[in-house]
Amino acid sequence: MKKKAVLLLSGGLDSATTLAIARKAGYDLSAVSFDYGQRHKFELQSARKIAEQAGLEKHVVISLNLAEFGGSALTADLVVPKHDSAAELDQEIPITYVPARNTVFLSVAMGFAETLGASDLFIGVNAVDYSGYPDCRPEFIQAFESLAKLATKSGVEGADWKIHTPLIHLTKAEIIRRGLELGVDYGLTHTCYDPDFAGRACGHCDACLLRLEGFRQVGQDDPAEYQV
Amino acid sequence: MKKKAVLLLSGGLDSATTLAIARKAGYDLSAVSFDYGQRHKFELQSARKIAEQAGLEKHVVISLNLAEFGGSALTADLVVPKHDSAAELDQEIPITYVPARNTVFLSVAMGFAETLGASDLFIGVNAVDYSGYPDCRPEFIQAFESLAKLATKSGVEGADWKIHTPLIHLTKAEIIRRGLELGVDYGLTHTCYDPDFAGRACGHCDACLLRLEGFRQVGQDDPAEYQV
Repeated sequence: MKKKAVLLLSGGLDSATTLAIARKAGYDLSAVSFDYGQRHKFELQSARKIAEQAGLEKHVVISLNLAEFGGSALTADLVVPKHDSAAELDQEIPITYVPARNTVFLSVAMGFAETLGASDLFIGVNAVDYSGYPDCRPEFIQAFESLAKLATKSGVEGADWKIHTPLIHLTKAEIIRRGLELGVDYGLTHTCYDPDFAGRACGHCDACLLRLEGFRQVGQDDPAEYQV
Repeated sequence: MKKKAVLLLSGGLDSATTLAIARKAGYDLSAVSFDYGQRHKFELQSARKIAEQAGLEKHVVISLNLAEFGGSALTADLVVPKHDSAAELDQEIPITYVPARNTVFLSVAMGFAETLGASDLFIGVNAVDYSGYPDCRPEFIQAFESLAKLATKSGVEGADWKIHTPLIHLTKAEIIRRGLELGVDYGLTHTCYDPDFAGRACGHCDACLLRLEGFRQVGQDDPAEYQV
């Protein structure tokens, strides 16, 4: 019997690639996505399509109103920063940072996994071509893994919780190359923080610029739709 | 200026007492409560009344559908265990355990605190007269505190995150005694896991039995309403 695992599936390029890697590694995958008041809610449609195409065991969408307390350009009424190229991206933690987002998401995924009898989580965080969010770093992931062993009934009973981060040390170009090898359909993924009404990407937010630069380096066209 | 802090307010006896202790310690308190599909949703009415009476800075209620994946007698369609006395309570982790609950709640509280510029959280967990949940133990709290420093922008920038657990080593009777000294109105609190349509406590679930035994030891009547 295959080992069960839970994937955090945002509907973006990274989580779609992580899904392909986890399946290749032989896991029986379920996924969890979040409707957390993000302005780029289009990513949930992508998440549903990706989960469906992959024929995942279970896919739950958890609603969680993080916009209730705001504090981020992704959930509050703040302007998403735009730039002309990836080289212009700030070195500081940007206002698209959503306080505690990955901690909340991993916690919920951990609870979901526990109900399935799983103690393996997959998350597509990346600490190379990323936006500088503190909760994407290896030391955060290690701390969460330690926490999981103490936080859960299964951990107390000896389950060996593992947070898999297969992308953490890859560049965006390496992620895309790996995904293309595994047959990921990047046309299904949504990356932009500030899409238009039809879900077309802006091409100028941090997330778009990192994605476009990755495809440029790989020498492939990005199949996502962009506003012209 | 008073130091800001965020309290996890369930509406139960422990969180109401924790509120009184945190205010006595001089914190400028905001609170977060959760509508997580719990069958004892009456506790949210209690949380609102307690927050209002205390005149808290902010009180947000976060909706989060943990019942989506079930796994607990508190959120799924399972029977809440009943007993005749506190002496009968199981030593094992009971089916009222909600996977990852405190991890999820603390994560959201951490995000809320970060938007307020706070790095102090108060939670009324207790490791003496409790139901044996893994996420009520001191080692879990310490692990979460370490995580908070790594998970947040403020932590990376040097904020000293602290998870205050003033009740963790108190018996239920000691908690009640402390609360009565501080003027807590326990008539406002809701403890029962399985109340009737009018919010009256069952008197026989783990939570009711621990509460009743606490009041008995203190030699006071419990002002909560019970089904006869």
